[in-house]
Amino acid sequence: MQGAVIIGRPFVLIGQRLAQHSEGQRSVENELASRIIPRMTIKPASARRGVPAVLLSAILIAQAVAQESDGRAGEPYSPKLIAEMKQLRDAALSSDYAYVQLAHLCNNIGPRLSGSPQAEHAVQYVAAEMRRLGLDVKLEKATVPHWVRGAETAELIEFAGQAPGTTQKIVLTALGGSVATPAEGLTSEVVVADSFEHLASLGREKVAGKIVLFNARFDKQMAAQGFAGDAYGQAVVYRGAGASAASRLGALASLVRSVGGADFRLPHTGALNYADDAPKIPAAGVSAEDADLIAYLTAQGTVRLHLTLTPRTLPDVASHNVVADLKGSEHPEQVIIVSGHLDSWDLGTGAIDDGAGVAVAMQVAQLIKRLGLRPKRTIRVIAWMNEENGLMGGKSYAVDHKAEFANHIAAIESDLGAGHPLGFSAHVNAKALGMLRPIAAVLQACGAGVIRQSQNSEGADVSPLDAAGIPTLAPIQDNRSYFNYHHTAADTLDKVDPRELAENAAVVAVLAYAIANLAEPLPR
Amino acid sequence: MQGAVIIGRPFVLIGQRLAQHSEGQRSVENELASRIIPRMTIKPASARRGVPAVLLSAILIAQAVAQESDGRAGEPYSPKLIAEMKQLRDAALSSDYAYVQLAHLCNNIGPRLSGSPQAEHAVQYVAAEMRRLGLDVKLEKATVPHWVRGAETAELIEFAGQAPGTTQKIVLTALGGSVATPAEGLTSEVVVADSFEHLASLGREKVAGKIVLFNARFDKQMAAQGFAGDAYGQAVVYRGAGASAASRLGALASLVRSVGGADFRLPHTGALNYADDAPKIPAAGVSAEDADLIAYLTAQGTVRLHLTLTPRTLPDVASHNVVADLKGSEHPEQVIIVSGHLDSWDLGTGAIDDGAGVAVAMQVAQLIKRLGLRPKRTIRVIAWMNEENGLMGGKSYAVDHKAEFANHIAAIESDLGAGHPLGFSAHVNAKALGMLRPIAAVLQACGAGVIRQSQNSEGADVSPLDAAGIPTLAPIQDNRSYFNYHHTAADTLDKVDPRELAENAAVVAVLAYAIANLAEPLPR
Repeated sequence: MQGAVIIGRPFVLIGQRLAQHSEGQRSVENELASRIIPRMTIKPASARRGVPAVLLSAILIAQAVAQESDGRAGEPYSPKLIAEMKQLRDAALSSDYAYVQLAHLCNNIGPRLSGSPQAEHAVQYVAAEMRRLGLDVKLEKATVPHWVRGAETAELIEFAGQAPGTTQKIVLTALGGSVATPAEGLTSEVVVADSFEHLASLGREKVAGKIVLFNARFDKQMAAQGFAGDAYGQAVVYRGAGASAASRLGALASLVRSVGGADFRLPHTGALNYADDAPKIPAAGVSAEDADLIAYLTAQGTVRLHLTLTPRTLPDVASHNVVADLKGSEHPEQVIIVSGHLDSWDLGTGAIDDGAGVAVAMQVAQLIKRLGLRPKRTIRVIAWMNEENGLMGGKSYAVDHKAEFANHIAAIESDLGAGHPLGFSAHVNAKALGMLRPIAAVLQACGAGVIRQSQNSEGADVSPLDAAGIPTLAPIQDNRSYFNYHHTAADTLDKVDPRELAENAAVVAVLAYAIANLAEPLPR
Repeated sequence: MQGAVIIGRPFVLIGQRLAQHSEGQRSVENELASRIIPRMTIKPASARRGVPAVLLSAILIAQAVAQESDGRAGEPYSPKLIAEMKQLRDAALSSDYAYVQLAHLCNNIGPRLSGSPQAEHAVQYVAAEMRRLGLDVKLEKATVPHWVRGAETAELIEFAGQAPGTTQKIVLTALGGSVATPAEGLTSEVVVADSFEHLASLGREKVAGKIVLFNARFDKQMAAQGFAGDAYGQAVVYRGAGASAASRLGALASLVRSVGGADFRLPHTGALNYADDAPKIPAAGVSAEDADLIAYLTAQGTVRLHLTLTPRTLPDVASHNVVADLKGSEHPEQVIIVSGHLDSWDLGTGAIDDGAGVAVAMQVAQLIKRLGLRPKRTIRVIAWMNEENGLMGGKSYAVDHKAEFANHIAAIESDLGAGHPLGFSAHVNAKALGMLRPIAAVLQACGAGVIRQSQNSEGADVSPLDAAGIPTLAPIQDNRSYFNYHHTAADTLDKVDPRELAENAAVVAVLAYAIANLAEPLPR
């Protein structure tokens, strides 16, 4: 996932008659039912310091039992539908299909940055696999940027206490879309800004001709408490807008402290956004350790850095979303999307961001086929292209399918890794939310019984659909460690636990199949 | 620290009338007193699965109270000595001197590999600082190897499922002392061996002409349970001896899965040992993730790797141990060494390995001077050179000072990071161990009251002294995360907690000062 979606994603909960799977157990009305717990009461407070929100959710859930009893009480969930949802859930939990697909994407194909041969190979692979399962597959065109990483080195060439004739290596990586330095690099003094306000206070006089380091720290405690997305949102603004802010004051280049919680000398990449009103300057993410080093040394005297970044922006490339339909039996024109994005950053192999989301979406189709089920509405598996640096897949789809939006019942996207899912999040109205509750009852058996009503699109690729009023949904993963790895070289297969990936497949499969089989379409 | 010392370092405990600081508190005879708890009872067992040894130690300590009551009961600790030990302890705990020194070594000087300008600069810096404190300082010559890292890149050029025209990057780093590949690199098939036995079973037929990957996993659970050194010892043998083992079967190059618990695509370096009976072949450490990738792909078919390593071994360099004496008032000829090693690997800045040990040793002198104390025997601060790849500092000292060994009362070395110290470990006889007990009583106030009797030298640099019968001692740090960082680019200042570093300084200062002031020399 990219930064834009998380920023401002409110952690509004939940309550909402939290459902619990209760096969053979008694049902109790939950006193929390129908209450929306606003964000401020969920945010870390001293009274419960150290209790992660995910655990809090579990506590809330433990107190909550659904009023729905496996759908027997009435519409719109027939006993047959509930039984099929449970079949899907249990089949997902005992399957390694998603993991095998993910391993292939990560290990056999590798990094899948938009425009790369690997990205195109992945498109063909997913399409072939969906065809093999018997889906109707289309490759829908999306014209994507083609940015290619080059050399990226930096060293401090002047600093206090320096051993004669030596430099200090700075570990960094170009931000996606960055322009290049001269091939031989550029050299200048480094000035550190802790915030945009701090940068403004330094002014053109102290910034012009310099290299700016934005040194805002990722809030590890906030992330550990279950608000990783908020911690990310706070810090990622410097990655997105830092270069142009520095450039407006005449800076030669922009560095940003890596947006993540790891302390393993690991630089994070990610897209930057050049503004129109400032010259484009080279920009890179530096590891937390190197940001600390530069801050320490600049406090002691002049620090000069030699910086070489040679990325290239090549002509745009014709790429594709993979769009694979498992046709509905009664309303084939009505569509429920299950999706993840196939493109990844180039440093790692895109396991958590977002091979996992694609693999889960693929498994939804595989499970339904394997169990011989047939949804009433069409379940559309989409592997989006170019979420990371342009969103051209999502945008192109919205343009190409605009005429069919009335028949887009819901769009599910998984793009926050594959940690244990606590349930699902939905940007829907109250009536729709109520209709989704029995799904939580089925998912509670795998610890995924939370429903969260969100105020924003549930995923970047589906955001154009969300903007058009189409309900968007996503699993709620435990993402406390997600930002330690995402956009780094360490986003690799081992970061995904096969069991947790299967749990995510269970959530998305049950959610999609249920929505596809409701008596009435999910209301908007 | 290098591997050799940890291997076989037994975790034999302790008991030994575990002492607890008991100012104003009642003293109770500890039923564990004088019992040696053999290793097997301490090693993880199902009954206490998940209880780290460090915590277990704390539990044992909580049950133990010293029979010594602040030395009042008798010799060889006078009330004055006990009071001075407490003064030192408390002054250490409230001082940032060691941290400031460590920051300078790491941030202002940087990596300090033997033979480098930074290593020599660090020698001069420590010597100047010790002179500033009023110590008698000598630079004692040690001729050290001068190995310089070069380019180090690798990519898979053939593997199952490969996107046409693409490769997969392998993250690796040359092992210290490795010979180079041809400048343009070498290309060959990779064969994976999980152990030396597995390699032998493959035989020359399957190994000759290939690149061998030793894929033995670092046991993270063992490390988490407090046996990090044992986990390291198990895995590091492949780093040390793998290249020659592979070479004996005709391999072209040797790779070893990184010896450490981190999962952040971080390769570990460290010295290798070429045997005399096999051609020297290039050798590198690959990240855990990349080892997994290679193992996954080799299970599917042929994997070919292009490997480029261009390190150089330059002529030996004249370097130095820094030897700084704080002269004893009564027995200046009798010496207690406090030490760490000043050289580091070149990837990080050598904070935990072993800038921390040097900074702690420096602080011992600084504290004694600041408090206006004067030890009866000489306290000798040594910053050793070349622990990592040759031990020439330790060996040279042993040769140069052999005639004075009878007057070397004890040698303390700190080389396992700067985690919270639980106490100290001593390779001494039972009588000496008994004499050390009151020290634990003073240290218990900062949670460092454990005494561990070890069976091996307490440090690599002091091992020649240990071999000559001189008692060696070391703080016992919580080292559960030590091997996630050591020998990697992430061994940087932030890995040291200033408070914990101060605790280490307290342990070493109290220990050294006490031994320097005992009525009789520590017996051998």
